[in-house]
Amino acid sequence: MNLLTQYKTVRQLTESICKPLQKEDYVVQPVVDVSPPKWHLGHTTWFFETLILKAHAKGYTEYDTNFNFVFNSYYESLGARVIRTQRGNLSRPTVDEIYLYRAHVDKAMEQLLAGPVSRELETLIVLGCNHEQQHQELLWTDIKYILGHNPLFPAYSDQPPKAHRKTSRSPLAQIQEGLYDIGYDGDDFCYDNEQNRHPVYIQDFMMATELVTNEEYLAFINEGGYKNFVHWHAEGWDWVRNNNIEAPLYWHFIEGQWFNYTLQGLQPVRMDDPVIHVSYYEAAAYAAWQGKRLPTEFEWEAAADRFTWGACWEWTESAYLPYPGFTRAEGAVGEYNGKFMVNQKVLRGASAFTSPGHARVTYRNFFHPHLRWQLTGIRLAQ
Amino acid sequence: MNLLTQYKTVRQLTESICKPLQKEDYVVQPVVDVSPPKWHLGHTTWFFETLILKAHAKGYTEYDTNFNFVFNSYYESLGARVIRTQRGNLSRPTVDEIYLYRAHVDKAMEQLLAGPVSRELETLIVLGCNHEQQHQELLWTDIKYILGHNPLFPAYSDQPPKAHRKTSRSPLAQIQEGLYDIGYDGDDFCYDNEQNRHPVYIQDFMMATELVTNEEYLAFINEGGYKNFVHWHAEGWDWVRNNNIEAPLYWHFIEGQWFNYTLQGLQPVRMDDPVIHVSYYEAAAYAAWQGKRLPTEFEWEAAADRFTWGACWEWTESAYLPYPGFTRAEGAVGEYNGKFMVNQKVLRGASAFTSPGHARVTYRNFFHPHLRWQLTGIRLAQ
Amino acid sequence: MNLLTQYKTVRQLTESICKPLQKEDYVVQPVVDVSPPKWHLGHTTWFFETLILKAHAKGYTEYDTNFNFVFNSYYESLGARVIRTQRGNLSRPTVDEIYLYRAHVDKAMEQLLAGPVSRELETLIVLGCNHEQQHQELLWTDIKYILGHNPLFPAYSDQPPKAHRKTSRSPLAQIQEGLYDIGYDGDDFCYDNEQNRHPVYIQDFMMATELVTNEEYLAFINEGGYKNFVHWHAEGWDWVRNNNIEAPLYWHFIEGQWFNYTLQGLQPVRMDDPVIHVSYYEAAAYAAWQGKRLPTEFEWEAAADRFTWGACWEWTESAYLPYPGFTRAEGAVGEYNGKFMVNQKVLRGASAFTSPGHARVTYRNFFHPHLRWQLTGIRLAQ
Amino acid sequence: MNLLTQYKTVRQLTESICKPLQKEDYVVQPVVDVSPPKWHLGHTTWFFETLILKAHAKGYTEYDTNFNFVFNSYYESLGARVIRTQRGNLSRPTVDEIYLYRAHVDKAMEQLLAGPVSRELETLIVLGCNHEQQHQELLWTDIKYILGHNPLFPAYSDQPPKAHRKTSRSPLAQIQEGLYDIGYDGDDFCYDNEQNRHPVYIQDFMMATELVTNEEYLAFINEGGYKNFVHWHAEGWDWVRNNNIEAPLYWHFIEGQWFNYTLQGLQPVRMDDPVIHVSYYEAAAYAAWQGKRLPTEFEWEAAADRFTWGACWEWTESAYLPYPGFTRAEGAVGEYNGKFMVNQKVLRGASAFTSPGHARVTYRNFFHPHLRWQLTGIRLAQ
Repeated sequence: MNLLTQYKTVRQLTESICKPLQKEDYVVQPVVDVSPPKWHLGHTTWFFETLILKAHAKGYTEYDTNFNFVFNSYYESLGARVIRTQRGNLSRPTVDEIYLYRAHVDKAMEQLLAGPVSRELETLIVLGCNHEQQHQELLWTDIKYILGHNPLFPAYSDQPPKAHRKTSRSPLAQIQEGLYDIGYDGDDFCYDNEQNRHPVYIQDFMMATELVTNEEYLAFINEGGYKNFVHWHAEGWDWVRNNNIEAPLYWHFIEGQWFNYTLQGLQPVRMDDPVIHVSYYEAAAYAAWQGKRLPTEFEWEAAADRFTWGACWEWTESAYLPYPGFTRAEGAVGEYNGKFMVNQKVLRGASAFTSPGHARVTYRNFFHPHLRWQLTGIRLAQ
Repeated sequence: MNLLTQYKTVRQLTESICKPLQKEDYVVQPVVDVSPPKWHLGHTTWFFETLILKAHAKGYTEYDTNFNFVFNSYYESLGARVIRTQRGNLSRPTVDEIYLYRAHVDKAMEQLLAGPVSRELETLIVLGCNHEQQHQELLWTDIKYILGHNPLFPAYSDQPPKAHRKTSRSPLAQIQEGLYDIGYDGDDFCYDNEQNRHPVYIQDFMMATELVTNEEYLAFINEGGYKNFVHWHAEGWDWVRNNNIEAPLYWHFIEGQWFNYTLQGLQPVRMDDPVIHVSYYEAAAYAAWQGKRLPTEFEWEAAADRFTWGACWEWTESAYLPYPGFTRAEGAVGEYNGKFMVNQKVLRGASAFTSPGHARVTYRNFFHPHLRWQLTGIRLAQ
Repeated sequence: MNLLTQYKTVRQLTESICKPLQKEDYVVQPVVDVSPPKWHLGHTTWFFETLILKAHAKGYTEYDTNFNFVFNSYYESLGARVIRTQRGNLSRPTVDEIYLYRAHVDKAMEQLLAGPVSRELETLIVLGCNHEQQHQELLWTDIKYILGHNPLFPAYSDQPPKAHRKTSRSPLAQIQEGLYDIGYDGDDFCYDNEQNRHPVYIQDFMMATELVTNEEYLAFINEGGYKNFVHWHAEGWDWVRNNNIEAPLYWHFIEGQWFNYTLQGLQPVRMDDPVIHVSYYEAAAYAAWQGKRLPTEFEWEAAADRFTWGACWEWTESAYLPYPGFTRAEGAVGEYNGKFMVNQKVLRGASAFTSPGHARVTYRNFFHPHLRWQLTGIRLAQ
Repeated sequence: MNLLTQYKTVRQLTESICKPLQKEDYVVQPVVDVSPPKWHLGHTTWFFETLILKAHAKGYTEYDTNFNFVFNSYYESLGARVIRTQRGNLSRPTVDEIYLYRAHVDKAMEQLLAGPVSRELETLIVLGCNHEQQHQELLWTDIKYILGHNPLFPAYSDQPPKAHRKTSRSPLAQIQEGLYDIGYDGDDFCYDNEQNRHPVYIQDFMMATELVTNEEYLAFINEGGYKNFVHWHAEGWDWVRNNNIEAPLYWHFIEGQWFNYTLQGLQPVRMDDPVIHVSYYEAAAYAAWQGKRLPTEFEWEAAADRFTWGACWEWTESAYLPYPGFTRAEGAVGEYNGKFMVNQKVLRGASAFTSPGHARVTYRNFFHPHLRWQLTGIRLAQ
């Protein structure tokens, strides 16, 4: 796909995700981790405007000088910004004004892409597209959170989701001890955190070829998994008690039956689907209850050709740390990944919300261990 | 005015206040004391539906059973409700849906009012209208807060506000010691907290006939009023330091000049206008700095025919307490006033945002001493 | 009693209150409102040193320049200080060092009192003695809190307390409408907040001649008083739910029986004693449940010769506000009372912990409405 | 050393650390991470009583049934306990009572050790001794915190500390790529988190043979290291700003000179000493400012024979995670390490406060990244 087509495809997908929304849905921020959809629309546009157009498009003038303050996410290099908890307090710019901003930036980008594009510029544009794809996944999860935490439980769509099917014959893949090369070494785009392919020594282990299902997880609930500290990390146990956690996010026990909120509204839990919307603490507690454990991210990558992945992100035991030889780029781009490398856990795979073409076997996603508004599930190792 | 006309006038005013808003402005709640405009629209409607239509209109069926949960404010008697801090997280029901709800209830109310109306019912409807007028004032102050805390400082209107003019000849009114009757005893509507007119003994005092102006208040700022603890209550001083308070709400010092946010956008502070958007702590500190004090609410009422009032609410020294003989009504209506009679200060007068016909010399408004998003100003006594 | 004797009597009583303590008991601060006993010992001494010796005793040199920082309570005029929440973190100065400090100051005070004493100085010394008496009451309540919140429930004393006896024949005193003079006008010591005797108009009312007993209060508990919002102020109801309040402070329900912690250790609740350790919220809720109310402080003072008082402080409905003509003194002494006149409730009477000679019918004690570590009880009016 | 001698040596060292303390110093808890010294005295004793005497000493009766509640630290298996933040609120049991408790348990332990000791029992006793050694280090750091946060800055000792001397000739050790065996495989005591020696593949790297000194760290301060976000993790930068961090813990800038609190009181910072009392965030920011990084724990262990270690704990880049094959023991002992394996960083080495015989090259210490009351320093890798 050429760069212009790639750019337009990505930009259009973002808007099509938002199409079923009411204007009011674009505005709210029910919890700090969730951003208002209109903020995602503006922020991804600001990213292209700030890092590409203002730096590389001759004669480009900033659309609105206030937008840098409104749509900067966390780039300290790029000036002051609305603090994250305040995003849901901004009624202006309006949704319509943000779509105009998008159109303005798209036009300028298309002009830029009509001319010759240096290697450096291409790299930045591809980064911008991948950045927007990441926000597409966040758009899905944030929309789900906004609608799923409304007392009216409105549906986003009335198209039924695909049922999950088991794909493998044998429940366990056996992997042999030895050195495995970990990390990306192809020629296409990857993030800086995947670079520097390097050998890692892994010991014999077994990997489940299927994800833990809702039915299996329900057994953990029913046998008191949330009531017994022995399965939990100390911090996980505090989290369970302080937040009265009793089931995955979006689960509701109504008149004797478990429902969960889906994009189709409140639905009975489908028992064969992989359990999703669990925190790392829950994933690790479930594994401990089973007498097993979560894989490391290295084990996951080494074994990934032995199972099907992509339905949900999979928590690993690994902390999010730099690969050997990792260095931060200069300037704002250098703030992309490195500064988050503490107190977070790596997730591997991809989810039903991941944008087409955005998944890779070496991809390192990361979240704090208590978060569960992403599509996060469990694969066991032992 | 007959009851139907009164009802329609009040209801239409609410909607006309909202007319200049963008849909997004209806949704947000930047601070817990502010409610989203769409919540006010729904809540005032719910009040008529719940206390009048459901109880008194034969055959009326509830518009949407979820709305009781969404639009109840604080009536414990009337069931569970969205907690106050969550109001800004609700994208649904949408603004359009709420206007449909208003239209539905208005139609049912008009049918009810077409028939015979008992004395008891009339009392409730008048209460509902006064209740909605109170929310009209909150709509104004909440809209001002929402727009005035947006980094773009959008204007609500481009019509210039009236300039304030001094009205009195003599700066001080002298009031003689003696017994004064305090409280309402007419035949029209008043709240339960104003009832039971009763004698109060007041000592000689002097009352300023003009409100403190921005110019006068600026002298307090410039002479270090916010830096010197001696003027402040201990709690006021803590509030100043914990919140870095340096001027009234909405004031901004920009390149050597004071501006304040108004419904017309950010404007230079007009020095002759009364200072507004000050807390009780600031009002009391200003008075102490002047070697004076705030009046009690009894002094205010006894002296009110000696000055012009109505530009802003005036903090008094009085705590909000029951008048002799005060009793709470049975049921939900009894939750209207009595349960707030602790830790709040009485304000007297009325403001530019008070709805026509809603002001009375015996009216007792009340807020916590640190709040200042209402139009609150200062009149001195000594 | 001459001034020297008065001084020595007060100072010795403070130390005798502390006598049964272990050194460790002097140090801790289990909650912000409670101060470590060693802090009280030092602070009362610092008060004499700072306001009297340093200002009026020729040639007196400060005992330790750090102690001003350690033992200042809230006097902004007198320099920086250890913040209140940190008092329990200070192991030094040690208890022994503080007793040496007391001895040093006592010796200097006795020398000062051996000479001629000006009227101004006498006033300050009497204030210092009254100040120390206030801290004696706090010593009692803070010691009770420290021991009563220890899981071992150690007793302070093994001497049994006196049983309470009903004293009046008729349960209700009837008071007639009219003007009553309120406030102190004698020649002895009183605080500035009691001064300016002035007429207050009071309407007909009835006053209970007995305090509410534990037995009566238990009926409120048993009939669900803590479970029904209708009896409570909105803030009181929040307080009940946020803190899981189910009974007065120090009450424990153990194997089917109510116990309360007393200075003699954990004891069965004595049903005829007045209920104590209740907050204003509880007092007001109890009164509402009874269809009655709390008296105002003016009613209390007007009726005080009709009942026996002094077993516990009695919550009134009145907010703590200045009397007409109240002005703050210049300097540090002016910080004594006035700056606390917001958001607090007046209590009248005196308690079993009040020092001999410290009680007056015009005395105005004050605390925030949620506090209950003082000996606070309930007298009803209607 | 035989087991009885080992037991007595450890127990006596604990008491000798406390010898210079005043009774008041034993009681306070100025911050949640610090425990009162008397709590350490009791808790280590409770460990022997609960896990050894009650389980293995025939006829042993519990010293005081309340002590389980008071001295349990975090063992969920062993019943309810005083929550950590409340430890400093307990004046009882007194210091004297806790020394009696120690003597009682020591006597029973000595009787037990006089008889035959099974292999299982020996393992538990050695664990108890190592556990007490860990608390000895905490005693040192907690005592330092208690005295060093007192406004009087009392000294613990007047013996001057040893000066630090550089020991190595060459500033960098070069380590070759390859497989290194990591973890303990001797026959003596080690914790479960060090077990399972296993190969780890490490790439070429260089390791500093000296720790970062105060002088070097001061350059980071003076060149604005705490003012520039680029050196910091996002969470580290928040920590710096929210807590106004400007220097290592215990550093004070007084009249143009840097002092730090030491056990000898407030002293000028000695420039040649290793910098200590820095958080992981500071260590990582310092390394980034130098264009270097922290070593992983595997690099540290592989290189440890190339430098001298033991003056302070050294932050590593590694998260605290289980080694391959790690499993938790059954029962309370299983709570020792595994449940803390999330959101913490590994420290390697040992400090001047580490008890004799307690250090090992495979030892894995761990703390949250913001903590700095331990003796924590910086060694660079690249």
